[in-house]
Amino acid sequence: MSDLILPTFDDVAAATTRLQPYVNPTPVFTSRTLNEQLGAQVFLKCENFQRMGAFKFRGGMNALLQFTPQQKQRGVVAFSSGNHAQAIALAAKILGIPATIVMPLDAPAAKVKATQGYGAQVVTYDRYTEDREQIGRDLAEQNGLTLIPPYDHPHVIAGQGTAAQAFLAEVGELDALLTPLGGGGLLAGCALAMRHLCPHAEIFGVEPEVGNDGQQSLRSGKIIHIDTPKTIADGAQTQYLGRYTFPLIQQHVDDILTARDTQLIAEMQFLAERMKLVVEPTGCLGLAAVRANPQRFAGKRVGIIISGGNVDLGRYGEFLTRSMA
Amino acid sequence: MSDLILPTFDDVAAATTRLQPYVNPTPVFTSRTLNEQLGAQVFLKCENFQRMGAFKFRGGMNALLQFTPQQKQRGVVAFSSGNHAQAIALAAKILGIPATIVMPLDAPAAKVKATQGYGAQVVTYDRYTEDREQIGRDLAEQNGLTLIPPYDHPHVIAGQGTAAQAFLAEVGELDALLTPLGGGGLLAGCALAMRHLCPHAEIFGVEPEVGNDGQQSLRSGKIIHIDTPKTIADGAQTQYLGRYTFPLIQQHVDDILTARDTQLIAEMQFLAERMKLVVEPTGCLGLAAVRANPQRFAGKRVGIIISGGNVDLGRYGEFLTRSMA
Repeated sequence: MSDLILPTFDDVAAATTRLQPYVNPTPVFTSRTLNEQLGAQVFLKCENFQRMGAFKFRGGMNALLQFTPQQKQRGVVAFSSGNHAQAIALAAKILGIPATIVMPLDAPAAKVKATQGYGAQVVTYDRYTEDREQIGRDLAEQNGLTLIPPYDHPHVIAGQGTAAQAFLAEVGELDALLTPLGGGGLLAGCALAMRHLCPHAEIFGVEPEVGNDGQQSLRSGKIIHIDTPKTIADGAQTQYLGRYTFPLIQQHVDDILTARDTQLIAEMQFLAERMKLVVEPTGCLGLAAVRANPQRFAGKRVGIIISGGNVDLGRYGEFLTRSMA
Repeated sequence: MSDLILPTFDDVAAATTRLQPYVNPTPVFTSRTLNEQLGAQVFLKCENFQRMGAFKFRGGMNALLQFTPQQKQRGVVAFSSGNHAQAIALAAKILGIPATIVMPLDAPAAKVKATQGYGAQVVTYDRYTEDREQIGRDLAEQNGLTLIPPYDHPHVIAGQGTAAQAFLAEVGELDALLTPLGGGGLLAGCALAMRHLCPHAEIFGVEPEVGNDGQQSLRSGKIIHIDTPKTIADGAQTQYLGRYTFPLIQQHVDDILTARDTQLIAEMQFLAERMKLVVEPTGCLGLAAVRANPQRFAGKRVGIIISGGNVDLGRYGEFLTRSMA
């Protein structure tokens, strides 16, 4: 493990320059109502408006932009049922790189279609009997493809960190930053940016309460593995932090908070009703944590990364109409 | 009728200056997917992100900012079940003016609550047996209040026109502009701005197909009255154009297009799924018209005003989950 070379802020800064022609300059939203409710000055970095609808494009694009000519020619492979799949598919399309995406047989048709719409080849597997990582590795070996994992890769982490760098460039100093936490790519990358550009700020990851492997890992000092958590926050259903992301989180992150599904639904409703924003469940983790811990953030300048807005309309409609009384 | 003094572009420009400290600088959104689908370069001016969730704040605030000290002291009255009510209530709150809003007994509880939340006094009436305009006029006379109508007022029209002025300031020249059309305040005001700042552009109003009084009026050369149309576009359920808005529309608007409710639902779904925007049915009129008339807008720079995002979450959830196959 000690031979891993962890990414640094310089990698994030280089990624910012590299990605500049490709990423959407996503807006930061504020709300007087929200500030009054929370007793804090809250800034939402709206990565739901990022290309393909989530911050994941940053990391995927940063990785593919560093492929050698040979890697580009042979192609990329990724396994994901979610935003990473679409991120790699879109980045590959932009760069003219062949892409193979390994998705579960029961993935939502809309996601399979969107991924194919970017020109990627979709390979399906049975999530109950087959191992997607093994399938990905086999495809990589047999066809000379480069495997880009969803979070545990220095280029992916550095790419995700550009979200925080762009955030600070727009709003200036923050007292605290909260990001959703799944495998830790976004949190680790943003922590690198924050520690360099805004060193006094507190940094928080927020994960589903039923999937608090990150919290357990940070507190126990080692990577804790859990079963796939049952939560609507499908972007944070990871079972363990990565070999790259965990040490960065240990080094830079102040604490890990959690949120329940009901809190995420309430925030989806708030964001739709009051701020006119469509946000996926995972994207609500940060806001839910601030609302649940008012004393911790009172009077502060609080930055929250809204990670994405990709949610099946049928599910989303149900979330919006659910009674939260 | 000939003694009416119609507002001019100078009134719009003055309103822009007057409103600058108060309005949200709403963003303009674009989408590669949308441009590909429509074969045009489409810009969406997102007034769903305006204060209280709709462009109506511009007109209401512009009117109240021009009250005399005596008018301010006595207060304002408005009749509306929709966005104009909240616009006047919020503008009055900001300026410390007492506000009375006349709303139907069966108005959605959320809207009544939001209006009261801005500190306004809500007076209810039975929409089947009572005349809201008469109630409003009686309240005005008895208590010395100033009545601000939802669209047929020079200050309201000039205020709404600032949306187009801000739009052009952000995106530059447009070949065409489309706005929703109810009573004509937004369309007339924006037409004043466009004719002065971008004279070659075509200007379109878009109204519900079942409530095409504007189209009939423009074609027949006189204001046509209709029954309250049954449409989900509640912001465009007006029965006739105004004495101020009609001549301005006659003079400056190129054509009036229409859209059906099913088209509005399809656009709400597109805007939520692909652009992560919550838009109310009325706000989708312009986009629906462009999609239904591709030959008319092909290859052009098309500006569309997304008028608002205030829609009851229960109804909105139903719209999003409705099968449009």
